[in-house]
Amino acid sequence: MRKPLLLWIACCTVQLSWAQQDDSLTIRRLSDEILTNGKAYDDLHTLTKTVGARLSGSSQMVKAEAWGMTALKAAGADKVYEQECKVPHWVRGEKEQARIISMRRDFVPPLNVAALGNSVGTGPKGITAPVIEIRSFEELELKKEEIKGKIVFYNYPFNPTFVKTFRSYGDAVRFRGAGPSRAAKYGALAVILRSMSHSTDNHPHTGSTRYNDSFPKIAAVAIGLKDADRLSQRIKNDPGMKVFLRTTCKMLEDTIGHNIIGELRGSEFPNEYITVGGHLDSWDLAEGAHDDGAGCVQSIEVIRTFKALGIRPKRTIRVVLFANEENGLRGGLKYAEEAKAKNEKHLFALESDAGGFTPRGFTMDMDAAKRSRIQSWAPLFLPYGIYDFSETGGGADIGPLHSQLGTPVAELSPDSQRYFDIHHAASDVFENVNKRELELGAVGMSALIYLIDKYGL
Amino acid sequence: MRKPLLLWIACCTVQLSWAQQDDSLTIRRLSDEILTNGKAYDDLHTLTKTVGARLSGSSQMVKAEAWGMTALKAAGADKVYEQECKVPHWVRGEKEQARIISMRRDFVPPLNVAALGNSVGTGPKGITAPVIEIRSFEELELKKEEIKGKIVFYNYPFNPTFVKTFRSYGDAVRFRGAGPSRAAKYGALAVILRSMSHSTDNHPHTGSTRYNDSFPKIAAVAIGLKDADRLSQRIKNDPGMKVFLRTTCKMLEDTIGHNIIGELRGSEFPNEYITVGGHLDSWDLAEGAHDDGAGCVQSIEVIRTFKALGIRPKRTIRVVLFANEENGLRGGLKYAEEAKAKNEKHLFALESDAGGFTPRGFTMDMDAAKRSRIQSWAPLFLPYGIYDFSETGGGADIGPLHSQLGTPVAELSPDSQRYFDIHHAASDVFENVNKRELELGAVGMSALIYLIDKYGL
Repeated sequence: MRKPLLLWIACCTVQLSWAQQDDSLTIRRLSDEILTNGKAYDDLHTLTKTVGARLSGSSQMVKAEAWGMTALKAAGADKVYEQECKVPHWVRGEKEQARIISMRRDFVPPLNVAALGNSVGTGPKGITAPVIEIRSFEELELKKEEIKGKIVFYNYPFNPTFVKTFRSYGDAVRFRGAGPSRAAKYGALAVILRSMSHSTDNHPHTGSTRYNDSFPKIAAVAIGLKDADRLSQRIKNDPGMKVFLRTTCKMLEDTIGHNIIGELRGSEFPNEYITVGGHLDSWDLAEGAHDDGAGCVQSIEVIRTFKALGIRPKRTIRVVLFANEENGLRGGLKYAEEAKAKNEKHLFALESDAGGFTPRGFTMDMDAAKRSRIQSWAPLFLPYGIYDFSETGGGADIGPLHSQLGTPVAELSPDSQRYFDIHHAASDVFENVNKRELELGAVGMSALIYLIDKYGL
Repeated sequence: MRKPLLLWIACCTVQLSWAQQDDSLTIRRLSDEILTNGKAYDDLHTLTKTVGARLSGSSQMVKAEAWGMTALKAAGADKVYEQECKVPHWVRGEKEQARIISMRRDFVPPLNVAALGNSVGTGPKGITAPVIEIRSFEELELKKEEIKGKIVFYNYPFNPTFVKTFRSYGDAVRFRGAGPSRAAKYGALAVILRSMSHSTDNHPHTGSTRYNDSFPKIAAVAIGLKDADRLSQRIKNDPGMKVFLRTTCKMLEDTIGHNIIGELRGSEFPNEYITVGGHLDSWDLAEGAHDDGAGCVQSIEVIRTFKALGIRPKRTIRVVLFANEENGLRGGLKYAEEAKAKNEKHLFALESDAGGFTPRGFTMDMDAAKRSRIQSWAPLFLPYGIYDFSETGGGADIGPLHSQLGTPVAELSPDSQRYFDIHHAASDVFENVNKRELELGAVGMSALIYLIDKYGL
């Protein structure tokens, strides 16, 4: 499976040229500037500690937009503006309650749960019902007669054997997306979902669910991993037990949000755009430091670094802080819609939305010739620990640009081991971001933007 | 500079063979076992939380040795034993005191300092003296007439532009090793050293100093980075200021320590040895979780995993938990001395002593043919994120085996960005180790030991 990666490294070795020496020196300047005078870490501190959590539609998101405008101006953008879009407005309501109700009347600590994003509440009185543990959709189908009137507990663990943790996420996340409606189809009253995580703690990890309108919308919560194991054990040992669950979350009317955009105007081709961005919104449980404060401040750092070094791009570089990735993707959709309506020429788009961890590569979604072109630059990235250009993928927010305008897209691919420890959980805080890891991601992004601006794609 | 790395990846791509498919499957089994049933993280929890800090010669080190024996037996070693050696016995004494004394009489918080390992104390009354800031040995020589009767403050920062942080350490650590005696030569009374770190906090980072016997031994402390900046500023703004420094550390007589050794006996060549290890001792300030509890538990995990999968090695695999890396290297010296005295055949030695972070490669110190042989296996490691076999280096504890017996040596090379945040500081605790990163290191180590045992070297 890894042969292609090695083969292209082999190929680009042959193509190593003295012409790349100049680029190597410029990239070294980018790196030295970012590692010495970088502002990404300070920017992230301000975003996470003065704004904090910022779900689309919330008042904090308004503050975050103002922060984004200020930060882009401070970085030296020629032009900073808002792009209005409609965003979902989901609110969590009161702290979720979940506890085991047993005839044994022993003391059982409450279960640590968090409502899934976009989910409905249980109603103010909550729900008390028996719980059925389900480990696969196959098992759900086999037991469909037993579901009615119960709470379905999807207890599908992250597969630890995948080395890249996004594979574990991809494998498990279908239970979060489709699980509630598939359970509702057979009469379930609510869903408890094992969190999408490898963590060793007990934080629940939220994230969007998607209801199928054919079935009743039922309440759905994520549960921390330790409590998932505890609940599973209890179900086995105490067949008469029930769970009380109470959530008061609800979806309100769509409201107004904004993509925040800063431009560095191109000197030769001002009407050709290179987009680099992350999403400004975060879940409401935490500071959204890795997800995706990191991507925002790294993107801003690209402009700051170019300005600091006097690098004037040929094309217009647009930093976009997208309005609504977590529970709607409305920011990315709006950005592509506007680009299409204005018939803008988008040369390339880069996203950072996999955490501010030490970079290892870029995933790409583009035709083979463009992919090969970027891969030919790989030797320039190796001194920065960036070696893997083998995988396919672009970011969520620039996905619409790719699908609707055919724009070549790429995403920074950081080391993934710690991402799902904190993803969508209260532990996604500034303190869990390492300054240099964050900065090295910005180095890789700046270098790629520099090369694409210089050579085209 | 990176061309050799790309070239050998290119070469080994050509050598990719179907014969490696079997090895690929076995390494996948090793990985699956470690990522699913691994004990390294639990072992590390026990070591750090029931033993904790364990400086050579301390009573905690005796507990650590007992822990090591138990853990090696539990992992399935055929034979577990101690190898006695003399170790230094340095004690920190009372909590260090350092504060700015000024005519201004404003409130100044104390400076956060920690005595350097092996250093002498100031005497119970402490020292009060003016401070001279020095940023290079060249500056020290230029100002040699101004040193007498003062405290020398070496304020040489980690160079942030090096991507691999061990280069920053290598660049700065000469001030810790040689700084005190070089200052004493010109009549300095004590030394304050900017900590060897990239951290964003204020923990002082200890570590050994080496006195030159030609000059008086003077007290030496490391200072946290925030306080180093504060002290530097104060020196500029308040020329009349002095610093009061008090340390009561001292070197006692050598005492007894032990390398803890567990063997998995070879089925074909039991008298050929493959060593894999880390050091059991740690500084007294912290739990020594990354440095080097991680290396110990990863090494033990190699044996556990082989046993769990029924892999019987051809050669004897020896896990060695070395007695005294931090302030003497006596464990490694003793191990080589015994190996030489017994005329043991040592095929290869592997060390893990750069933290329990996500692995990126191995450094090697061996002849070119052996290096090429290991590099030819690189494709087998790539699925685990291990791609860099380009650099020279072996571990400290297996250094004597290399220099005295000519044993080929290698060291696990994890991502280095976070290492010097916690290295030799109170923040080197279990909570700062990620389970999967630790385990992936053990995967790489197990795979390399497996291949060397199978094919020789």
